[in-house]
Amino acid sequence: MKKYTELDQNERKELYQSLVVKYNECKAKGLSLDLSRGKPNSIQLDICQGLTAVDMSRERCFSDGGFDCRNYGLLDGIPEMKEFFAEAYGLNKDDIVVGGNSSLQLMYDALVRATLFGVYGSPRPWSKEEKVKWLCVCPGYDRHFRITETLGFELINIEMLSDGPDMDAVERYAKDPQVKGIWCIPKYSNPSGNTYSKETVERLVSMECGAPDFRIMWDNAYGVHDFNEDGDELVNIFDLAEKYNNRDRIFYFSSTSKITFPGGGVAFIAASENNRKQFMPYLGAQTISYDKINQLRHLRFFEGKVSKLKEHMLKLGHEIEKKFRVALNALDTIKGLGIAEWTEPRGGYFISLDVMPGTAKRVYALMKEAGVTLTPVGATFPYGIDPKDRNIRLAPTYPSIEELEIASEILIIAVKLAALEKLGV
Amino acid sequence: MKKYTELDQNERKELYQSLVVKYNECKAKGLSLDLSRGKPNSIQLDICQGLTAVDMSRERCFSDGGFDCRNYGLLDGIPEMKEFFAEAYGLNKDDIVVGGNSSLQLMYDALVRATLFGVYGSPRPWSKEEKVKWLCVCPGYDRHFRITETLGFELINIEMLSDGPDMDAVERYAKDPQVKGIWCIPKYSNPSGNTYSKETVERLVSMECGAPDFRIMWDNAYGVHDFNEDGDELVNIFDLAEKYNNRDRIFYFSSTSKITFPGGGVAFIAASENNRKQFMPYLGAQTISYDKINQLRHLRFFEGKVSKLKEHMLKLGHEIEKKFRVALNALDTIKGLGIAEWTEPRGGYFISLDVMPGTAKRVYALMKEAGVTLTPVGATFPYGIDPKDRNIRLAPTYPSIEELEIASEILIIAVKLAALEKLGV
Repeated sequence: MKKYTELDQNERKELYQSLVVKYNECKAKGLSLDLSRGKPNSIQLDICQGLTAVDMSRERCFSDGGFDCRNYGLLDGIPEMKEFFAEAYGLNKDDIVVGGNSSLQLMYDALVRATLFGVYGSPRPWSKEEKVKWLCVCPGYDRHFRITETLGFELINIEMLSDGPDMDAVERYAKDPQVKGIWCIPKYSNPSGNTYSKETVERLVSMECGAPDFRIMWDNAYGVHDFNEDGDELVNIFDLAEKYNNRDRIFYFSSTSKITFPGGGVAFIAASENNRKQFMPYLGAQTISYDKINQLRHLRFFEGKVSKLKEHMLKLGHEIEKKFRVALNALDTIKGLGIAEWTEPRGGYFISLDVMPGTAKRVYALMKEAGVTLTPVGATFPYGIDPKDRNIRLAPTYPSIEELEIASEILIIAVKLAALEKLGV
Repeated sequence: MKKYTELDQNERKELYQSLVVKYNECKAKGLSLDLSRGKPNSIQLDICQGLTAVDMSRERCFSDGGFDCRNYGLLDGIPEMKEFFAEAYGLNKDDIVVGGNSSLQLMYDALVRATLFGVYGSPRPWSKEEKVKWLCVCPGYDRHFRITETLGFELINIEMLSDGPDMDAVERYAKDPQVKGIWCIPKYSNPSGNTYSKETVERLVSMECGAPDFRIMWDNAYGVHDFNEDGDELVNIFDLAEKYNNRDRIFYFSSTSKITFPGGGVAFIAASENNRKQFMPYLGAQTISYDKINQLRHLRFFEGKVSKLKEHMLKLGHEIEKKFRVALNALDTIKGLGIAEWTEPRGGYFISLDVMPGTAKRVYALMKEAGVTLTPVGATFPYGIDPKDRNIRLAPTYPSIEELEIASEILIIAVKLAALEKLGV
């Protein structure tokens, strides 16, 4: 199979015309498919349905310590929920503050507090700084970028490499005292699906920072989301940071949103004692307590055992992997054509597809015209701008296998068409 | 019965000595009672236990519109939950945004947004104002005051009268452009237990404000918390505001925290279209969606009927009223002695007791010494300072009837002792 760049104009033209015929056939089907968001499919949700059947009768509404979880109190969460998360994510239970249903909210709230009041070690609230700059590993998660954009930070693109962010660039920028932090999804990153190497994490926690209050926003959203037993290994960031006496640099987040029900789960933040001492009074001004009944419900669902959580995740992973296989099989047909590169994650929710530079928007438009909605091009970059116009986030979980097969077929045609148009037809 | 002020020194001395004997007898019992927080008792929680038994199997996890509530989406809440709250509180359903488990969090978040971004009509974010002042009706709710204190606003005391805040003072202060708003608990106010009159509400929504972005934080926490069918009537603030074209002035809040489980319920904010258009993008930066499963669970618990909610509230009200009766019966024994005044609410969670000026702290200390913890004196005032040192918030719901009887007996002794000490013994 020849690379597209090696085709002559006539070959390209011929190929293009035959692809247009296929494309029009697809278009004629009048499809309406949505591959835009990283949402679980109803099959996944059904696997979690037991959560609503958990026995939460009176005697089961008390925590181990005898605390009545139906009432106010325990702002930082039920002790056994902390223990559960600590074991599942390899954390220190005392570092954990269990929140409500949304880790995104915990992140937004953490950066809002930084803006209004500063964090531990801040010389002043970030709103009193002349300017706050923020490192955004991209392609990355649009909602992360939106938080920091909303707060008025200046967003700086950091390229995602195969083993995590481009650390040379990160280290260079971090020396600037106006750079206050970085967004990271360290395992099965959204959307690239890769996992940070030990070296990357070690550089993050040991690097010299110009700001005394630099924060790594460590969103380990997919920390237990392996498809199989041989998932990626992510090194423990707090353990590594300990070595460099930099545990205060980390705000660690995760949630059960993609473990049980999105929006109906339990989130947490983990942070050093210094950090918690600084922010807990503000958290105490914001709320009396989070939903402890839902914390208990989750604990009961997993029988308090991390082994049960892992069993459950493998069931979900099995379903998700089937979807990934469909998309990856389709992508395999264009391997070696020199028109696209992509990741083959062992977990998480996304595949990152890099098409020929300058053609991602065209691919999006062709898909849209054929009735398939992709994540908008640029969404995975700060300010919605993909400087190379080449990244497409594929979110295979939500559609059915059949829908995904059709969408993948069209995707391949669209990627080819856009590449040929770019090369000239 | 003679007023204490009419007793001569010898009479006071004699009385004091006999009270000290009684007090010491109580102290000898080695009690440990907590009357400090407005928490429901386990009897009340048991009345709500059905919430955990609601059938939430698969087919019941969909909203009327067929939306799968297990998944992401519906940031502003499930339509039928809006309708339910709208009917229960006499609101426009389109004005309602259903939140998470905590109305306090919605209030904190609303004022944080005002600080960082302003509200509809703000010339600039409140953090860019030279100073923000805030009216605090007091005695009032300590957690309200803490939010505005945390955000750096200057708190101004407004006296609570029998029909609501001292509106002459409110109107005078509101002319100051630095005064950006007021905290209100309009029905069964915390802690005074009284309800704002129509005239008060009308003056609030029609008064001239120096700030173009003045906000009434209308925390209708006890909006459906009548003890009996003849509860207080609160006028509809949005309807009145409509008359003066001032609907934008209102941020309206409530929650089910004292309807079902504290911390395990559902909260909402209601606001005009202009306000919602302004703040929804920020809410969308903060979270993807709130817990819709819990919204549905609450709807199912009440069978979607406000009549069921009202039945449920009367059951709770019956229990709470019994507690109030105990405290009020004890207080009746000091009627006419000129050493205390108190409210006799027809709903809510609190009784506000005004003891002889300058003796509240002493009453608190005497109670503490006898093993009864009251809400700290001053907690019901901005900065924790009761300028007249006379207000005590009684929270009768949490202890049992028996505990309350004992605590009330000691309270009466303590109020008398403190008064006599003040008058001289």
